[in-house]
Amino acid sequence: MATFPEKGRTEKEILKEINEAKKLDLDFSSGKILGSMCTEPSHIGKKVHQMFLESNLGNPGLYQGTKNIERKVHEAVGSLIGGEYDEVLSVGGATEGNIIALWRARNVSGKRKVLLPESAHFSFQKACNLLDMESVYIPLDDEYRVDVSAIKDEIDGDTAAVVGIAGTTELGQIDPIDEIAELCDDIFFHVDAAFGGFVIPFLKELGYQESCYNFEFKNIDTYVLDPHKMGMSTIPLGLMFSKEGSPLSIESPYLTGKDQKTIRGTRASASIPAFWATLNYLGKEGYREIVKVCMNNTRYLIEKMGDIGFKPIIDPVMNIASFHLEGPKRIVEGMAKEGFNISRTVNPPGLRFVIMPHVSKTSIDEMIKVLGE
Amino acid sequence: MATFPEKGRTEKEILKEINEAKKLDLDFSSGKILGSMCTEPSHIGKKVHQMFLESNLGNPGLYQGTKNIERKVHEAVGSLIGGEYDEVLSVGGATEGNIIALWRARNVSGKRKVLLPESAHFSFQKACNLLDMESVYIPLDDEYRVDVSAIKDEIDGDTAAVVGIAGTTELGQIDPIDEIAELCDDIFFHVDAAFGGFVIPFLKELGYQESCYNFEFKNIDTYVLDPHKMGMSTIPLGLMFSKEGSPLSIESPYLTGKDQKTIRGTRASASIPAFWATLNYLGKEGYREIVKVCMNNTRYLIEKMGDIGFKPIIDPVMNIASFHLEGPKRIVEGMAKEGFNISRTVNPPGLRFVIMPHVSKTSIDEMIKVLGE
Repeated sequence: MATFPEKGRTEKEILKEINEAKKLDLDFSSGKILGSMCTEPSHIGKKVHQMFLESNLGNPGLYQGTKNIERKVHEAVGSLIGGEYDEVLSVGGATEGNIIALWRARNVSGKRKVLLPESAHFSFQKACNLLDMESVYIPLDDEYRVDVSAIKDEIDGDTAAVVGIAGTTELGQIDPIDEIAELCDDIFFHVDAAFGGFVIPFLKELGYQESCYNFEFKNIDTYVLDPHKMGMSTIPLGLMFSKEGSPLSIESPYLTGKDQKTIRGTRASASIPAFWATLNYLGKEGYREIVKVCMNNTRYLIEKMGDIGFKPIIDPVMNIASFHLEGPKRIVEGMAKEGFNISRTVNPPGLRFVIMPHVSKTSIDEMIKVLGE
Repeated sequence: MATFPEKGRTEKEILKEINEAKKLDLDFSSGKILGSMCTEPSHIGKKVHQMFLESNLGNPGLYQGTKNIERKVHEAVGSLIGGEYDEVLSVGGATEGNIIALWRARNVSGKRKVLLPESAHFSFQKACNLLDMESVYIPLDDEYRVDVSAIKDEIDGDTAAVVGIAGTTELGQIDPIDEIAELCDDIFFHVDAAFGGFVIPFLKELGYQESCYNFEFKNIDTYVLDPHKMGMSTIPLGLMFSKEGSPLSIESPYLTGKDQKTIRGTRASASIPAFWATLNYLGKEGYREIVKVCMNNTRYLIEKMGDIGFKPIIDPVMNIASFHLEGPKRIVEGMAKEGFNISRTVNPPGLRFVIMPHVSKTSIDEMIKVLGE
């Protein structure tokens, strides 16, 4: 049992212990993390993050410089998404964004039923439990997109919100956002683009598929995407766009801002200037190139997995590839013992890979070699 | 309007812009922040934080080293608090801890009424709105401690939880935790020691007052304290201790942990090794010295404020001092124009100062000079 020491230890001794511990953490640069939606942040993002460790936009009056950068981040990402919106919040990630979206839907509508694709991230389960809302899961079609006619059948006078996913966690599939939006004239419609938000805008010019939604589509109320995933920036940062100003805000009289609209009080905000540096360093051209390499590597993985007998669950829509396998847990655990992080799907059961920018053809080859054995 | 650039800009150009923005952020080392509960983290804490920027205990299997340090942090702080507990969660700060505490109380009890001291932090209002719970505010006594007899009168069959504050936001007052605990045999009792958690244990030996609670007191169910306040460490980090294991957990099958018990999904975890380094560097001896200096400076502030006609609302219990003043907002805004961050109280109206370790007698003198004018 560790105890709180009576007297301080030396810096040297402490750093020795810390360095030993650090060796047990996996490192993106090893190429052995093939199951995470995060990646090595840009070098400039890391450098800038370190400059702003104390910055806390929970108390914005103290951090006017960070606040100014936040505004620019919101505007720049807004211009990437396209269409009109009324408000942007910096959140800790899509989990917080998803919770805030349903929170608004419940408070504004006074209703509690949420229609969720079966492919929705587990954070919606967390949100519904927290908010005391009822989740109704909508089945998926053969391509694992939510079944729009089933949503239509399920909408009734108790429905507070409908959720669509632009880049599902398990398969990277995109729900038919435009068709769902058509059904949501009087119902709150939230789009979770945590992963897809920084992939989809760049797919079109690569010949993969049309950018399938933005705020030009009517009826989208809130839209969340994570710079700390394919935005190539540091954790924790999600951005939540919304069509109408928040009906929710809690007064914070003793702080320099008059109220708070996020769940978090203290908001570690170094990730905001880090992302501003990252997006300016890469530009659309840089992101497009990253998406291109990731998509090529995803196709490479599918080819190599085919060689050892694995069949993809769907043709990849973005840089996530999952493969049919009953009882994947055993293999995931076996690979972990060999130092590889891969992941699994539940619906349908399978092995899941996220081909992030830190995953090269070489790291795929090394993983395939061990997996084959 | 900022836009998402087509092509990347140069690193030099970006860093120039970032450095310009940074100059607008206030800096703890300026001594001009006298209204914040945060402070300059220890130098070793900042150094270690930078080593772990990617560490995310939302996906703990990837970060076994960070996970091991987290266990030691929990044990060490547990030994500081004293008494028996069953579980510790690392949260983003007391706001998340306060929400989780009431979430559990609601789900376990099936009830929705929460008794809150009038001095409770606004995060409880946020929590009650989110959780759809009813907040009932309990009046304070002449010393701005919650009135225990009023709690007793208000407890009924609908009461889910009672909250006590160990270090109120406005005045740094401590509620009679032991007396409240006596009332909570069948009711969930949560203690918010966000600020006081790393002050109170060191006050006793300085002759100020007894450490007034720990888990040896019966009936305390949850207890939250923030290393990122008087723990001298980096944001964001709160620790939530609880007497019984969480009845709440959301499965996270595709991640390396089997479930999540926090609100956050991705959990930026660099602040955990940063705090381990900080607490080992300082030891109890170091914290005691810091609290001693802060308390001395708080008494110095009261003396100097007295010289220009301000009267403290209470004798300081910890390193927060607030002074009677009708309509404090005008002065807070005026001081902000002079570059000083001071804060205000609502109940009763006044000027509020948090005498953190970065606030020296010199910075108090400089502030008093400007305030006097």
